[in-house]
Amino acid sequence: MPSRKILLDEEEMPKQWYCILPDLPKPLPPTIEPAKKAPGPGIVPLIFPKEIIAQEFSKDRWVDIPEEVREIYRIWRPTPLYRAVGLEKALKTPAKIYYKYEGTSPSGSHKPNTAVAQAYYNMKEGKERIATETGAGQWGSAIAFGCMTFKLDCTVYMVRVSYDQKPYRRVMMELWDAKVHPSPSTKTEAGRKILKEDPESTGSLGIAISEAVEDALTHEEANYGIGSVFNHVLLHQTVVGLETKKQLEKVEDYPDVIVGCIGGGSSFSGLFTPFYYDKVSGKAPKDTRFLATEATACPSITKGEYMFDHGDTARITPLIKMHTLGHDFIPPPIHAGGLRYHGIAPILSMLAQEKKIETRAYDQVEVFDAARLFAQTEGLVSAPEPSHAIKGAIDEALRCKETGEEKTILFMLCGHGHFDMQAFDDYLQGKLLPYEYPEEEVQKSMKRLRELYPWIDTLPY
Amino acid sequence: MPSRKILLDEEEMPKQWYCILPDLPKPLPPTIEPAKKAPGPGIVPLIFPKEIIAQEFSKDRWVDIPEEVREIYRIWRPTPLYRAVGLEKALKTPAKIYYKYEGTSPSGSHKPNTAVAQAYYNMKEGKERIATETGAGQWGSAIAFGCMTFKLDCTVYMVRVSYDQKPYRRVMMELWDAKVHPSPSTKTEAGRKILKEDPESTGSLGIAISEAVEDALTHEEANYGIGSVFNHVLLHQTVVGLETKKQLEKVEDYPDVIVGCIGGGSSFSGLFTPFYYDKVSGKAPKDTRFLATEATACPSITKGEYMFDHGDTARITPLIKMHTLGHDFIPPPIHAGGLRYHGIAPILSMLAQEKKIETRAYDQVEVFDAARLFAQTEGLVSAPEPSHAIKGAIDEALRCKETGEEKTILFMLCGHGHFDMQAFDDYLQGKLLPYEYPEEEVQKSMKRLRELYPWIDTLPY
Repeated sequence: MPSRKILLDEEEMPKQWYCILPDLPKPLPPTIEPAKKAPGPGIVPLIFPKEIIAQEFSKDRWVDIPEEVREIYRIWRPTPLYRAVGLEKALKTPAKIYYKYEGTSPSGSHKPNTAVAQAYYNMKEGKERIATETGAGQWGSAIAFGCMTFKLDCTVYMVRVSYDQKPYRRVMMELWDAKVHPSPSTKTEAGRKILKEDPESTGSLGIAISEAVEDALTHEEANYGIGSVFNHVLLHQTVVGLETKKQLEKVEDYPDVIVGCIGGGSSFSGLFTPFYYDKVSGKAPKDTRFLATEATACPSITKGEYMFDHGDTARITPLIKMHTLGHDFIPPPIHAGGLRYHGIAPILSMLAQEKKIETRAYDQVEVFDAARLFAQTEGLVSAPEPSHAIKGAIDEALRCKETGEEKTILFMLCGHGHFDMQAFDDYLQGKLLPYEYPEEEVQKSMKRLRELYPWIDTLPY
Repeated sequence: MPSRKILLDEEEMPKQWYCILPDLPKPLPPTIEPAKKAPGPGIVPLIFPKEIIAQEFSKDRWVDIPEEVREIYRIWRPTPLYRAVGLEKALKTPAKIYYKYEGTSPSGSHKPNTAVAQAYYNMKEGKERIATETGAGQWGSAIAFGCMTFKLDCTVYMVRVSYDQKPYRRVMMELWDAKVHPSPSTKTEAGRKILKEDPESTGSLGIAISEAVEDALTHEEANYGIGSVFNHVLLHQTVVGLETKKQLEKVEDYPDVIVGCIGGGSSFSGLFTPFYYDKVSGKAPKDTRFLATEATACPSITKGEYMFDHGDTARITPLIKMHTLGHDFIPPPIHAGGLRYHGIAPILSMLAQEKKIETRAYDQVEVFDAARLFAQTEGLVSAPEPSHAIKGAIDEALRCKETGEEKTILFMLCGHGHFDMQAFDDYLQGKLLPYEYPEEEVQKSMKRLRELYPWIDTLPY
């Protein structure tokens, strides 16, 4: 019987992150400032520390992880790699299934990997506070933890409906000394404007982003923190994949396929890009496939168009080349937690466009079916987001069963579901139904975007 | 900088549990059947498998852990031992603080250590179902998991007020295929009787126990499962302390004091009794102290009397010699989660009576203060129950700071607090107040017990 858990000592934790930028098939397109109809960074340099900006455009393949950050990582890192012995048995598959589990972190997901780093660089450059937004609180709780470790203040604009209906991650943030405001709030111009129009507004992630960015822009002591999409966030997450490579080396194995879920894309990228490096540098023993899974309710990479769009609803960010459902996308009222963002990280979008990664969308019912089987065979209650990856891994394992191939499947279990039990209750009570975001809605959004910026298709990138 | 985590490989997991019975200062008194006013096992042999009964009275110091149980243990065991680097630094103590963390188990506490074993022995002896009770669901979710792993059905009588107000652990049980009934239910005579008197009854643990035991007694295919107090439960939990000994050996350390919280007493016993064995067998390098902490709101061991009493409110169990607040104790409406039982495991009660262990009670405000400091320094959100142990460890560490002693403190962190965020919210909002259960209430209970059984003080045990 193989070991279920493959563990590393703290000394085996990576000392550098891997930056994929030099290894992309071609350079990332620049961001575009709509007013100039030309390349420009927009507000980006005004709300991030210099070191983060440098990482955003790094030409170095390897970036040192500061010792102070590694010291905090040691609270929960290295994280365990599990062999899914129980799941393999239940599926009767000849495939070997492994999963990297990030749920043992303080906030219960992979998010602190970047939150701690962001807090460190802000502290280092003399900032006293980070402002950010959060939906249900997964990212908010991570940055609250990160700020606390480096004695920064933390202001979180939390979407009002979550603030009212899902208070438990708010409590976690407050336990770590963050100041949490329901958004729209009276703290910002953006919030006050919305509240004037609709005093009962339940908020949206777009509004919360606007508030957090305005807060950072208008306060000298504060910067902004972000939980996904940006290159530097994907960079910080590579500690996950680098650990996993060492863990698989210990059992003399290597993945044939790597599966992850994508909201913005940072957890999946964190796991697979170090293996992508093996492939492009000729070091990979196998022609590994990379499979990104997402929700049919928010099919950014499978149905979205690869074009320039804003990263936020309020159009504060510059235009970014990525797969998008349109910056005015309103997520349908379904679960799937964090997988509700209209765009996808530019790095991941390009890799999909260049056919370096595969993509697949699943509906919420089949995703919760997979989570249930996983809980019953592996004992772990997974968050809805990584349950998309579980579903993807199960499908790959079942295909191996048909073909008789003894492939090695690796997937990312980026967090536990202890704060998502309402979704599991709805599922068990049969209240969840399959849902597909309509193709024509995407086309309408793209039409609106082209009406807004008629020159957008003439950009030479 | 020392490692924060001391890990074991799966092969290093203990192969035997440690049974303290042969090493007690004197034999445990027998249980008494009130009708006979004489020793007798009461219903005990009717609701447990033979192997469990044998373990309950084991004369063997070492009991083999079945290979099938170890195979399931491997899902989460061995669990990590942490060096509390962050807490030590915050306290500026010369003491070294370690904690054994059981929150990585499927249900998030130490409870599956015995749930899996109980399910195994029931399956082995041909039973098809386990019936049990649960309050907020910590034990219920563990036994649901245990039953699922050995394909037993599981019926959980869950106190109605928790069933309605704290649904998330119910969802976890259902995800693992348990059938959960709000108690009082219409499924049993006991439940129906209560509902007839009060259709709006919100239930109590005492009622739920009556329902579960009646279910087991009246159904041939079913047995009863219990989460603490009984000798066999304490036995199964010793896997915790045996692992910890190996982990401390790896860093060449040994505890001067071991701290745990006690509800029934199984988690604390699981940690300290293997070290107690060292002491009585002359193998201990230090004169280790053992400190049990409990809630001032339910001060069973610090204020309760050491005498014969029933284990349940409905007087179904035989009389057990233990520290008790009286079987008609009604817990005050405070938090502190599982630490609400009127009695204490007979083994632990005798050790306290014989001055082999120390005891201390803390109020809920100082306990949550300790949990907050712990979350801020170690990153982990602890359950309210083990936060009593955190408080105890902090007090010991602060005493070392005063005296300058470099003692080694070990405590039991038996579970995470992800399902207790409402309690943390109440604490942060200042809604929790110190509370001490009145001494005179204990005296009244004892008076009622002596009126019920006037011969109780004449028993020669």
